[in-house]
Amino acid sequence: MIQAGIVGGTGYTGVELLRILVQHPGAAIRAVTSRSDAGQSVGDLYPNLRGFVDLEFSQPEIELLAECDVVFFATPNGTAMRMVEALLARDIKVVDLSADFRLKDPLIWKQWYGEPHACPDLLREAVYGLPEMNRDRIKKARLIACPGCYPTAVQLGFLPLVESGSIDLQGLIADAKSGASGAGRKVQVPVLMSEAGESLKAYAADGHRHLPEIRQGLKQMCGEPVGLTFVPHLIPMIRGIHATLYARITGEADDLQALYEARFSDECFVDVLPPGSHPDTRNVKGANRCHIAVHRPQGGDTVVILSVIDNLVKGAAGQAVQNMNLICGLDELAGLHAPALYP
Amino acid sequence: MIQAGIVGGTGYTGVELLRILVQHPGAAIRAVTSRSDAGQSVGDLYPNLRGFVDLEFSQPEIELLAECDVVFFATPNGTAMRMVEALLARDIKVVDLSADFRLKDPLIWKQWYGEPHACPDLLREAVYGLPEMNRDRIKKARLIACPGCYPTAVQLGFLPLVESGSIDLQGLIADAKSGASGAGRKVQVPVLMSEAGESLKAYAADGHRHLPEIRQGLKQMCGEPVGLTFVPHLIPMIRGIHATLYARITGEADDLQALYEARFSDECFVDVLPPGSHPDTRNVKGANRCHIAVHRPQGGDTVVILSVIDNLVKGAAGQAVQNMNLICGLDELAGLHAPALYP
Amino acid sequence: MIQAGIVGGTGYTGVELLRILVQHPGAAIRAVTSRSDAGQSVGDLYPNLRGFVDLEFSQPEIELLAECDVVFFATPNGTAMRMVEALLARDIKVVDLSADFRLKDPLIWKQWYGEPHACPDLLREAVYGLPEMNRDRIKKARLIACPGCYPTAVQLGFLPLVESGSIDLQGLIADAKSGASGAGRKVQVPVLMSEAGESLKAYAADGHRHLPEIRQGLKQMCGEPVGLTFVPHLIPMIRGIHATLYARITGEADDLQALYEARFSDECFVDVLPPGSHPDTRNVKGANRCHIAVHRPQGGDTVVILSVIDNLVKGAAGQAVQNMNLICGLDELAGLHAPALYP
Amino acid sequence: MIQAGIVGGTGYTGVELLRILVQHPGAAIRAVTSRSDAGQSVGDLYPNLRGFVDLEFSQPEIELLAECDVVFFATPNGTAMRMVEALLARDIKVVDLSADFRLKDPLIWKQWYGEPHACPDLLREAVYGLPEMNRDRIKKARLIACPGCYPTAVQLGFLPLVESGSIDLQGLIADAKSGASGAGRKVQVPVLMSEAGESLKAYAADGHRHLPEIRQGLKQMCGEPVGLTFVPHLIPMIRGIHATLYARITGEADDLQALYEARFSDECFVDVLPPGSHPDTRNVKGANRCHIAVHRPQGGDTVVILSVIDNLVKGAAGQAVQNMNLICGLDELAGLHAPALYP
Repeated sequence: MIQAGIVGGTGYTGVELLRILVQHPGAAIRAVTSRSDAGQSVGDLYPNLRGFVDLEFSQPEIELLAECDVVFFATPNGTAMRMVEALLARDIKVVDLSADFRLKDPLIWKQWYGEPHACPDLLREAVYGLPEMNRDRIKKARLIACPGCYPTAVQLGFLPLVESGSIDLQGLIADAKSGASGAGRKVQVPVLMSEAGESLKAYAADGHRHLPEIRQGLKQMCGEPVGLTFVPHLIPMIRGIHATLYARITGEADDLQALYEARFSDECFVDVLPPGSHPDTRNVKGANRCHIAVHRPQGGDTVVILSVIDNLVKGAAGQAVQNMNLICGLDELAGLHAPALYP
Repeated sequence: MIQAGIVGGTGYTGVELLRILVQHPGAAIRAVTSRSDAGQSVGDLYPNLRGFVDLEFSQPEIELLAECDVVFFATPNGTAMRMVEALLARDIKVVDLSADFRLKDPLIWKQWYGEPHACPDLLREAVYGLPEMNRDRIKKARLIACPGCYPTAVQLGFLPLVESGSIDLQGLIADAKSGASGAGRKVQVPVLMSEAGESLKAYAADGHRHLPEIRQGLKQMCGEPVGLTFVPHLIPMIRGIHATLYARITGEADDLQALYEARFSDECFVDVLPPGSHPDTRNVKGANRCHIAVHRPQGGDTVVILSVIDNLVKGAAGQAVQNMNLICGLDELAGLHAPALYP
Repeated sequence: MIQAGIVGGTGYTGVELLRILVQHPGAAIRAVTSRSDAGQSVGDLYPNLRGFVDLEFSQPEIELLAECDVVFFATPNGTAMRMVEALLARDIKVVDLSADFRLKDPLIWKQWYGEPHACPDLLREAVYGLPEMNRDRIKKARLIACPGCYPTAVQLGFLPLVESGSIDLQGLIADAKSGASGAGRKVQVPVLMSEAGESLKAYAADGHRHLPEIRQGLKQMCGEPVGLTFVPHLIPMIRGIHATLYARITGEADDLQALYEARFSDECFVDVLPPGSHPDTRNVKGANRCHIAVHRPQGGDTVVILSVIDNLVKGAAGQAVQNMNLICGLDELAGLHAPALYP
Repeated sequence: MIQAGIVGGTGYTGVELLRILVQHPGAAIRAVTSRSDAGQSVGDLYPNLRGFVDLEFSQPEIELLAECDVVFFATPNGTAMRMVEALLARDIKVVDLSADFRLKDPLIWKQWYGEPHACPDLLREAVYGLPEMNRDRIKKARLIACPGCYPTAVQLGFLPLVESGSIDLQGLIADAKSGASGAGRKVQVPVLMSEAGESLKAYAADGHRHLPEIRQGLKQMCGEPVGLTFVPHLIPMIRGIHATLYARITGEADDLQALYEARFSDECFVDVLPPGSHPDTRNVKGANRCHIAVHRPQGGDTVVILSVIDNLVKGAAGQAVQNMNLICGLDELAGLHAPALYP
């Protein structure tokens, strides 16, 4: 059994990691830490886990984490980059769910995250944990930077199209919609029930931190810089991301449906729906899945891709476990093969 | 007092008309009809109106409606076009909230609504009831075709930009999100609480009936055909539309904020928010208002317009009363000057 | 015009007072204060009020408030009791929406609110502002203690029954359900969208602060202490309270429906629905109304009363304005006669 | 592997059975029927099951079902009672999720369900499938009548108290709240998003079909008829039932917490929370669990029990699989040991 540790277990991605790992046939939870809730039992704080986890949250100490084979960081940005070196030095693998190792360029990191990167040396080594793009490199990695939730939905949706070279790479648009759990469990006025419920708004239209991350990924796909407009929206629901992607076709694009089906035919967690479909975030809720549909309205030159995930699963904790499976040599599906909760 | 009649008073736009008209200082409700609920008192069916409306739903007979100065049609598509001539012949003004008179070309109507238009002669006379575009013509009209909910949000959002001539008119994108009340009070599986709640999906990505209506309006603004991709989404809330509009700037566009503020400076129901704003559908809920914000992310050549309305008010019943005010010579604000319900 | 001031205008009851007062034909808003947001314009913080209120939030200074005829306190508990004396001394009437003057006994106040009452002398003078119980005294009062939201729904529901003397007064049960806006705009984990959405729980089952308030009111109705069990629940919605009340009939109770209709026949804001009805919180949303239905399941000896209000209107700001109307000699309906927003 | 069939697989309980059974280590789905959707693939109709179920819905023919070891009925009331005999005659075990075999007395069945019972002979043989009450009898049964959703939450909550004999059995009150999925996937106006969302109401206060079922169960617990008032409420959420139970203590009741903990100490699916807790329906969402808390407000003689379940799992499909496990000799936990989805 792989011994797993979780640093920062009291946020939504942390508790979702716990939910997935307690059902994982090849992994056991050795430690779960939380500065703020150390000493409390997991089941008291998260009653959904009563009877499944018999642990207390502990202080995030290296000695404790050193007993693990793999450590997940489900911490706010800025924590992992100060602790990862000590873990790697003890031959512990790290899967970081925060943004600390996602951007390759420390200057861009500083620009978007507001402080110098504390561990720039590891930025090059860290592998961006989108298995559908980087599976082989992930398998050999010690340090995984799990993609953000929006970047997962947007990059999976654009992947075949951008690789194909048949679109105008300067005018990509990603109109993305997310449930409120994407904002985490921090108390903030905009995600109060009375504020976020029964309403809808865009935010960060002038620039969201996931923009440079997506641009970096799209550039990797096609080998050149892309022009992307990314507008996220807050939706009155808890889980789910829906990315509506727009691109203008410039080259040959006879059968986009076939292009998508072929690209993802070996992917167990990406499902291209039949022509004419409109994926519903509900149908991936709680599941490590991405549902994609391809549209070309009225046969024009604009293609519309609909890509949905559960932001806490394929957009965070599920993808992190998928990465753990890969770096630990387990079956990629282990612990992740379950249908979504409908309705 | 203007005597008003409502045909089809038991749908959401009908009951919203009732809510607005009972508070209107210059209008009285003379008759409200419903084939399915004739004989029932309004207050029994809609307890929110108990004590405000002392009427029963009646059969939609011309003799009854002939006692009115103005008649609203809040009926499914296909009803108004069979009754309007008889009313106009009796000098009764008509405000149609259905789609029957929105499209100028009967062939396009047939293509999107699936049957020949029953009253093509009046299509030319009917005035498209978007006051911000057609106020002067509305004032002289006998027959108003109220815009659809999506078309209201999208056209108001694009109006200054398309008039300005400084964008690529062939690559417009409207990503629109609507609450479930837009689907009306018909029983359909997709708008059950358990289906539409806690989920999000696009629909009609290949072509929604509001597409030709929006195209027709945009063409009127700039005098030439436009290329528009329009993708509507169903959002887990009841009221509200958020249109996120994308266009590529080609010409001079130094100060878009000023352009929008100038264009709408005399409009009492369109409010351009300060730079950097993200309008929230909550803030127009129950109000006859459109809130608009203008963004140009990272100073690039893509402009992003955020436009929100309450689909049942500025997108339907409120705009209908605004049109009634104009064709009856009342103050345009009459009965419509109230703040949104927050939270 | 009555000049009105609001102390603590940035919470949900404060902004709801603003929404109601801007439409009030006999009152004008002279000042609105907020320690935390002083200097900000009302419309910037609450965009639903753009174009309706042209004021900035100011510091809560007595000199400023002294220009008002009536001052509302929409503050957290503990503020009004430190400022009211200075206002009364200047002949300004006070309508307090907080709990400071609701309980007559300062010892009980201390027991439930955790500190000694700062102004016990005024407790006797303060009139409990439930017009359906205390209208005549309210009309002559200088200081009104507005009822809490739960106490309004529960007391109105029990009123005819408790007055009638035909029930067991020792076994009353009030199972109450409230939307999240009842918790205010304070940031707290339990009212985050991701916590309160799609879920339901009881809270404070062992004793909620509204319990002594309700008991005091019920005792006033019948002249003797009552035994009440009160369990509030948090419901995944924003506005609305539904109180389900249970009592055992001991005496003659032939026609409870008639009893209720008679008791409330002159009340403009309490509406007894026809027999067999189940009031829906939706039908009072945004309205200063209480809908009540009376049931006696299977003709047994348990009576079930269903009583619904909008917690922010009849349960707070609307009732406060109703009290203002009474103490200022205005029409009790002024500014409050509008239908609920449906759907 | 147990071969399982599902009759009526297109409602919410049917699709939930599918979701649970595809993950069950000891059962395989042999057939799933639907009159209305026969011929359609399961994955097309329910995209959450794409990749998990490779079946089409078929006509409900006995020959097909005869290949199964156990058949579930997830049909509307009135179907199972016409098909069960033929299945039992072929040695197939039946787990009926409808109400057909819940009531022992065919006259009471007729009174509440409006038609004579079609199969009264089997009423005596059928075992009421609440394992916490009837485990031993369930293990030997051929025909299980699965409890309704409300009856599950209410009976589990009352069980220790009613068995204890220390309460007034004539004045029990069950105030129950359910999400909209309890109404099924039938299209009905009251469960439209725009009707059920953001609102709350009681229904069937004068008598709900689950009332005689609960009374029958409570009588079994204590051996005498009980007096119960049961008021269900529709809550704006999808999954979850919260039963708030009230009883008056008459005898010795020193430690109710200990009473509950002892009664359920061997139950794997009932969890008595620590003193002072308020269970949240969220924490059992998707899980076959009942969370219970015991309160005695202010030490008075009224006890308040809070009991929550997921109506589609412990209140329907999960409990049905628990029964299948018991009648087929499998581990009672098989396929059901998974934490709830939070948030």
